[in-house]
Amino acid sequence: MPPLFRRAAILGLGLMGGSLALALRAHGAAESVAGCDALAGRAERARERGAIDVTTASPAEAVREADLVVLAVPVGATCDLLAAIAPALAPHALVTDLGSTKRAVCAWAEALLPDPGRFVGGHPMAGREQSGIEAAVADLFAGAIWCLTPAATTDPAALGRAEALARALGARPLVLDPDRHDTLVAAISHLPMVAAAALVETVAADPAWPEAAPLAAGGFRDTTRVASGSPAMARDICLTNGPAILAWLDAYQEALNRLRAAIAAGDAEAIERMFAQSREARDTWLHAQDKG
Amino acid sequence: MPPLFRRAAILGLGLMGGSLALALRAHGAAESVAGCDALAGRAERARERGAIDVTTASPAEAVREADLVVLAVPVGATCDLLAAIAPALAPHALVTDLGSTKRAVCAWAEALLPDPGRFVGGHPMAGREQSGIEAAVADLFAGAIWCLTPAATTDPAALGRAEALARALGARPLVLDPDRHDTLVAAISHLPMVAAAALVETVAADPAWPEAAPLAAGGFRDTTRVASGSPAMARDICLTNGPAILAWLDAYQEALNRLRAAIAAGDAEAIERMFAQSREARDTWLHAQDKG
Repeated sequence: MPPLFRRAAILGLGLMGGSLALALRAHGAAESVAGCDALAGRAERARERGAIDVTTASPAEAVREADLVVLAVPVGATCDLLAAIAPALAPHALVTDLGSTKRAVCAWAEALLPDPGRFVGGHPMAGREQSGIEAAVADLFAGAIWCLTPAATTDPAALGRAEALARALGARPLVLDPDRHDTLVAAISHLPMVAAAALVETVAADPAWPEAAPLAAGGFRDTTRVASGSPAMARDICLTNGPAILAWLDAYQEALNRLRAAIAAGDAEAIERMFAQSREARDTWLHAQDKG
Repeated sequence: MPPLFRRAAILGLGLMGGSLALALRAHGAAESVAGCDALAGRAERARERGAIDVTTASPAEAVREADLVVLAVPVGATCDLLAAIAPALAPHALVTDLGSTKRAVCAWAEALLPDPGRFVGGHPMAGREQSGIEAAVADLFAGAIWCLTPAATTDPAALGRAEALARALGARPLVLDPDRHDTLVAAISHLPMVAAAALVETVAADPAWPEAAPLAAGGFRDTTRVASGSPAMARDICLTNGPAILAWLDAYQEALNRLRAAIAAGDAEAIERMFAQSREARDTWLHAQDKG
């Protein structure tokens, strides 16, 4: 079978873009991969790691011959990047992205691309604690759900090619509306990110922290893992998905208040019931994940 | 070198007690290990797993000949258990526990044991997502901090034996005051437990959960891991360490409010700064852990 794409252009070579480049090559899904990154030296390091074949001086140059263009930058940089590549895109190119929120990105594509029908918003539900090209791995997307969020104007053929890309890299494409994506992901990804960062802030800013830190073990490590993600990415998520995050944060504060009230009252039954319900819900989810 | 203890009695054979029994045998720290559990059949399964040599019908019978007695039950069951074994304890026995909070446990030991000087409160900072004897592993304590919380009345020789026990199983004993222990552990263990349970409740109780659940990935899994612990253990922690947990919960909700305000205001700089500070604090902690 010939490669899905003749030439891929990966714009941004951090954890996500770098892993995508490695995965494209590992699965033989692109004949050649060009890449660039705004961070000096990173594209060169990606080439040395074998993630890309060619580094280019600019995003526009990278996309000129590409039939697959992937934007792999923090959401906040997507708008300018779309504007920069719009005049240089080949007519047959599929354009997609890997950003954490989709409503804003899809609206920018609609507004900025000469032919927005070829754009398909994408968001693979995969990540790692570390960031940067050094943390990139070829199997990051294996088994992961890969959200694809076509707009009303999206060409069905473009969506089909985006689904084929996700499948070729071992992921499971899931098609949903950009708004719905942002609401759901606010619950299972953005709220945990905010909760983890606030948890670290709470304990690390306290005078007791130097004494408490050595006692912190696996539970603290896991609960706060997502607080070690890129601050720029977190910022852009909060800026482009604020209302959904705030709504989930309201519900979270209410759940904390209910637990607080039960603890303050010393209500053994209520406390145990809440913890038991959470455990059951999580274990049910975990079981479904392991089966899926 | 002869074993540290001639006969150990492990009262409670869940994850913690079962792992302790396995570790005692793996390290040759006790000539024989007797055990019992209130849950029908569990002690027998522990014997089949090779965790203990002998099952006994009652805690009093288990401790009669023991020079090491370890209470490995949820904190709430400790009081009755101390009362039950008090008349049967051998005069030379070291008595310790593995409970998550120490102020209440040490007070009960002081009130109930004929010779409270031989009691040393203990809390190994180790755990797993699963519970029960089936989840027990011999290396659970390897490299972990093992808190020991002597009271004013504790015999220094008993403390020395408890430290030797922790070291023999590969752990690092850390001696601190019971009250101080409870305050510190509320920050790095109990608050994360409450935060994780509330996070699961928030998303799993929402009508969107069936649609959101398949999108949840590693970040959600890790952030909520400690919500899968034993609800009875969580209940007893909240009942015996309420004021400390509530104080940390106050600070946590304030941190959430600060993040909420920055998100609501769309204040890019403030949002990024908070996430950057949390990442730096966590990464500094992680680095110290990996070195320690």
